[in-house]
Amino acid sequence: MEQRLKRGDFTLPGEAGYEDLTLRLAEKWGADVIRDSDGTALSDQILSSGYGIYSTVCMVREVNEWAKQNPDKLQQNFLMSFPVTAQGETLVIHPLDGYYTEQFRLNLHDSPKKYWQVFDRTTGKEHPAEQWEVDQKTGDVTVLQCKPFHRYTVNFLVYRIWEEISMYNAITNHLDKEHVMAVEPRYPETQRELLRWLEDWCKKHPATTVVRFTSMFYNFAWFWGSSEKNRNLLTDWGSYDFTVNPVALERFEQEYGYRMTSEDFVNQGKYNITHANPTRKYRDWMDFTNRFVTEFGAKCVDLVHRYGKKAYVFYDDSWIGVEPYSERFAQFGFDGIIKCVFNAFEVRLCAGVQGAKVKEIRLHPYLFPTGLKGEPTFSEGGDPKTDAALYWKNVRRGLLRTPVDRIGLGGYLHLTEPFPDFCDYIESLSNEFRLLKSLHEKGQPYTLKPTVAVLTSWGKLRSWICSGHLHEHPDLDLTNLLESLAGLPFHVKFLSFDDIREHGIDSEISVLINAGTVDSAWSGGENWNDPAIVEAVSRFVAEGGGLIAVNEATARHNGDTYLTLSNILGVDLDKGDRMCSGKYQFTVEKEHFITECAAQLPPKEGVFVSDAATKVLMANGSAPVLTASSFGKGRSVYFSSYRFSAENTRTLLNAILWVSGMEQEKQYCITDNAQTECAYFSQSGRLVVVNNSEQPQTASVRLPGGKVETVALKPLDIRILEV
Amino acid sequence: MEQRLKRGDFTLPGEAGYEDLTLRLAEKWGADVIRDSDGTALSDQILSSGYGIYSTVCMVREVNEWAKQNPDKLQQNFLMSFPVTAQGETLVIHPLDGYYTEQFRLNLHDSPKKYWQVFDRTTGKEHPAEQWEVDQKTGDVTVLQCKPFHRYTVNFLVYRIWEEISMYNAITNHLDKEHVMAVEPRYPETQRELLRWLEDWCKKHPATTVVRFTSMFYNFAWFWGSSEKNRNLLTDWGSYDFTVNPVALERFEQEYGYRMTSEDFVNQGKYNITHANPTRKYRDWMDFTNRFVTEFGAKCVDLVHRYGKKAYVFYDDSWIGVEPYSERFAQFGFDGIIKCVFNAFEVRLCAGVQGAKVKEIRLHPYLFPTGLKGEPTFSEGGDPKTDAALYWKNVRRGLLRTPVDRIGLGGYLHLTEPFPDFCDYIESLSNEFRLLKSLHEKGQPYTLKPTVAVLTSWGKLRSWICSGHLHEHPDLDLTNLLESLAGLPFHVKFLSFDDIREHGIDSEISVLINAGTVDSAWSGGENWNDPAIVEAVSRFVAEGGGLIAVNEATARHNGDTYLTLSNILGVDLDKGDRMCSGKYQFTVEKEHFITECAAQLPPKEGVFVSDAATKVLMANGSAPVLTASSFGKGRSVYFSSYRFSAENTRTLLNAILWVSGMEQEKQYCITDNAQTECAYFSQSGRLVVVNNSEQPQTASVRLPGGKVETVALKPLDIRILEV
Repeated sequence: MEQRLKRGDFTLPGEAGYEDLTLRLAEKWGADVIRDSDGTALSDQILSSGYGIYSTVCMVREVNEWAKQNPDKLQQNFLMSFPVTAQGETLVIHPLDGYYTEQFRLNLHDSPKKYWQVFDRTTGKEHPAEQWEVDQKTGDVTVLQCKPFHRYTVNFLVYRIWEEISMYNAITNHLDKEHVMAVEPRYPETQRELLRWLEDWCKKHPATTVVRFTSMFYNFAWFWGSSEKNRNLLTDWGSYDFTVNPVALERFEQEYGYRMTSEDFVNQGKYNITHANPTRKYRDWMDFTNRFVTEFGAKCVDLVHRYGKKAYVFYDDSWIGVEPYSERFAQFGFDGIIKCVFNAFEVRLCAGVQGAKVKEIRLHPYLFPTGLKGEPTFSEGGDPKTDAALYWKNVRRGLLRTPVDRIGLGGYLHLTEPFPDFCDYIESLSNEFRLLKSLHEKGQPYTLKPTVAVLTSWGKLRSWICSGHLHEHPDLDLTNLLESLAGLPFHVKFLSFDDIREHGIDSEISVLINAGTVDSAWSGGENWNDPAIVEAVSRFVAEGGGLIAVNEATARHNGDTYLTLSNILGVDLDKGDRMCSGKYQFTVEKEHFITECAAQLPPKEGVFVSDAATKVLMANGSAPVLTASSFGKGRSVYFSSYRFSAENTRTLLNAILWVSGMEQEKQYCITDNAQTECAYFSQSGRLVVVNNSEQPQTASVRLPGGKVETVALKPLDIRILEV
Repeated sequence: MEQRLKRGDFTLPGEAGYEDLTLRLAEKWGADVIRDSDGTALSDQILSSGYGIYSTVCMVREVNEWAKQNPDKLQQNFLMSFPVTAQGETLVIHPLDGYYTEQFRLNLHDSPKKYWQVFDRTTGKEHPAEQWEVDQKTGDVTVLQCKPFHRYTVNFLVYRIWEEISMYNAITNHLDKEHVMAVEPRYPETQRELLRWLEDWCKKHPATTVVRFTSMFYNFAWFWGSSEKNRNLLTDWGSYDFTVNPVALERFEQEYGYRMTSEDFVNQGKYNITHANPTRKYRDWMDFTNRFVTEFGAKCVDLVHRYGKKAYVFYDDSWIGVEPYSERFAQFGFDGIIKCVFNAFEVRLCAGVQGAKVKEIRLHPYLFPTGLKGEPTFSEGGDPKTDAALYWKNVRRGLLRTPVDRIGLGGYLHLTEPFPDFCDYIESLSNEFRLLKSLHEKGQPYTLKPTVAVLTSWGKLRSWICSGHLHEHPDLDLTNLLESLAGLPFHVKFLSFDDIREHGIDSEISVLINAGTVDSAWSGGENWNDPAIVEAVSRFVAEGGGLIAVNEATARHNGDTYLTLSNILGVDLDKGDRMCSGKYQFTVEKEHFITECAAQLPPKEGVFVSDAATKVLMANGSAPVLTASSFGKGRSVYFSSYRFSAENTRTLLNAILWVSGMEQEKQYCITDNAQTECAYFSQSGRLVVVNNSEQPQTASVRLPGGKVETVALKPLDIRILEV
């Protein structure tokens, strides 16, 4: 192997006190950069060892002394009190009852009458402001003129008094440290303090070559409860709840000409989770916040640049407002972006960002004693080598399709000492990464002709992600689809309903995918009530396009059909209103291009065939789970639901080719074994074949010239053939 | 056994040509009445044998010659054409495409412009009447100024040219008979013809003692399609679609002051099935029709009475408009009502009718070669004795609680000849029936204290039935609950939301049951948006009442919670809008009064615990399926879903006692074995114990005095103890 493939593009977590280990593993793994981690520091010996140095900073929690002196400059958010049922005509609600008071403190400083709201949730109506009162000492709300047995809630403002990531780490690891508070950067005083702190920090860290922001200012929504039986009251990786405060509310009103109320955020206690079809108001708020974060963030990046350092941003934790897929992202001036990855779609999420040159992925497992679910990793009983190999199997699928620039690890380096097989594995993995990167540098891998567009309410802004990791919402159809798509040889785009309304459907798109449950941002919810959308998508299919619909794709309420495009799909859903209606009987097609291997698709209650011409490719009893139809010159496929697996991925590949009428594309550069995948780098003259299974496999691939390569693969193997 | 218990109360289907068999079995089974059946006749020898004679008549299909001469007096209904997607700006729709043209003929006689409507189903809006035209020869509808890719439908009137029950029998049995047509009795000419026919018939049938109407004028909705893959396009035992015609529409407008449109019936092609929460307009139409059917029906009954015969009505087939549970029913003047029964709830349905003295049930299996699903019964491979015993097991549960007056069979008597064990079994069954009836005559069986009310949108009008037989919609929670309740020792009432709005909740009610999916008539749908309902039910529980909620009971759309009374139930449903919200962790209660035996309850996706105090009694993984809560002085139980079984019935019994705080009631007159049930007739001094299983069982019962009776039971056994 060339020397340059054995070194570089690797970020190693160094650890003071383990200088020899740090330098030895840096050499073994080919690191060119050493970083600190949460809980570790780098010693002078490491800092002066000639490596690049990453240092992590999370500005909003770095100025805790200032925060303590300025308790009115803490970050805030709206909460809804737990509903209370009125027994009589007067009701007292303690707003924070049920919330974790180590996280939240009532904001009685900014006028409750101005910002708070009381709702009768039984009727859904706001309770008149003159019929409730706040006790300025206790914060208790007395609701007058209640209706007995109606349920009442209070929307109220809180300060947050313990930054959530450090709170989580402290509680999980039983650390008794000072509670760190996140400051609100909307206040000019806070901005001055943060810039002062950052400049001071830059001065004091001359060895640092890269400042890694973790991330900018606002964490995703994470509300904790007082009950140990229900600690996480709300968790959403993409929600903007923590960006709200009176200053922002006032400025928003000035800029947008209307006022956001507490209920616009609280939304009946459901808040504005990423999975829900977003309102126009909420999109405005996101845009408003993104502009602020970009503007003030750019000042921070400029400052770092003035000190001759690069600025990278971590695409996790306090990433809210950063929006790497927004048009504004390049204005930050970041030199790089770092994403921690479990899966292939997260590789694509990182790789696809425009406006930051260096893309780096942080691999799992982190060098911690235990894993995500408390299972041992770098401790007795752990097998971190296998863990790493299984994560890498996922990640590698994404890396075959698109390159990133760097990989790295995080955590406590000394924990690797009892695991030499892990250390050897990371050495080979790093070499494998550099080799794949080098292939991409010479030219893109072979891509099949259909261009696939994923249609959601978010479109490009939520490219390659729904909200958070696959393991957090393992049943979400679209995340599973993204994981399959991330390793498939197609160009993939992300399209919003607004895109269609404004620009129609781009002529280079061959296949539309719409997937999700009704009312979700993923299916598009009420967008399907817009005839312009129905017309555009119908025309697209009628003129030869392909439509893949999953679960309650295209669904709306109150239509004559539940799936708005059931006329294209040939299936519909019975939500009980069709229980007396006839459903077409069917026989399952024995052979079809799409069903090459045994897919495992969860059935969906109520799915029925609504057109005699529909072909049922798979069924679960009387419920179709995979169907195919034609409409005009185009085709459609319906999946009752979708989960990532090798067989399902192959079925999806076939479905994409079939709906776009490009079945012949399959003859080249696709393995003949669903457990394996390949990437053909013609400019490099290399065929990369991977085994995604833990069993040995054999795979044959026909190259564009017609030559067939056959290769035997060990479990999880990669083979790189000169062809 | 007393002689009077060996004879009477039994209706035997006689058969001409088998006179000896008829009289022999009449003697054996203790028949006092001989009937004809569809396809059989009674000979003079039978008619003059001294038995009572039932004769079946279905007037609306008895005057076929007149019908042929008056094709504009046939029954009609609205249909919605199958949706057609516009490709351009003009579209031609053939309204009957997809429908079975042996059943339907377009009505072009009554002005289409007046009665028909065209809809753009993509927008949900009516297409302007000036933008469509009907070809008066072909009936084709040309829709002008269409929007491409929108879907259009035509609502149109049809005549029905083959009465559905005879059509079904003819097609099922491959009979090539003349097509019988149902005439529309709204026309004065038709009424004259029907009364003329009935009088003539009475004159010609002097031996008939009872005229059995099958039933009155209108069949339930049953639309057939042209495709053999989708023959039954709509089937609902309780829908009024077949009562519509221009005369009725005009009269309705005069009486109610507003006009019913085609869409009021068509309802986006979903029609007004009994399972859907009924609209006020549709209820008006039902009432309007019921009044007409009662008025004209009473004339028919009067005529029969004038000829010295009794008039019974069959509570099936063309029963629409009869409404035995309406206040008007007694006005018909029927002497009896006959219900065919598979299940206990149908026994209660028949037994509970007010306004017709004699209640008769028609037992299964019918004396036909094959059963409901084409399986052999009275033909080679059949085992009609076992079939009869298993049906009787169900039916007997209802008969233990409430009496009916008569039983009977239907079909071809000669088919019983190869099955002497069946004939013996019916002999013993008949004796058993007469014995049970005699016990009821001396006094009611012991009943536990809680009075249970089933709360639905229909209330009393749909007492003891949802829509049709249990085997037609086996997954319907409420039918399964009714089947359990039908054999439980409680008083059961049926309450509507209107009842609550008008009169509140009757103080004698201890337990409310609400069961079903959202938007259904069974859960109540939008009634739960009415604060008056929420207040009344909440107050009922708070003051000590019990609430049993099943599946999406109390659910509404767009609330802060999905189950409106989740504050009482302690559980809620996540429809996707709660996927980021915390759910209370729980441990399943190991022992609880309710969970005496292993219930089998289908889990419901999305159910979660919404209150820390909720007790989870059963769970399927992380999904609670049976929970118990308290609210004020009252209690509630939530079932994720419900299916009839011995164990579930016992669980329901316990739940009723627990939510009403009357657990101590269980000590008397309840068997200690869920596979068995009992009824204690104190005035008769008899304890009846039945084995509902096909295995031997032992059961002990404590009587009110404290004495414990223990009895061993053979499979499906009944034991009647003197106590």
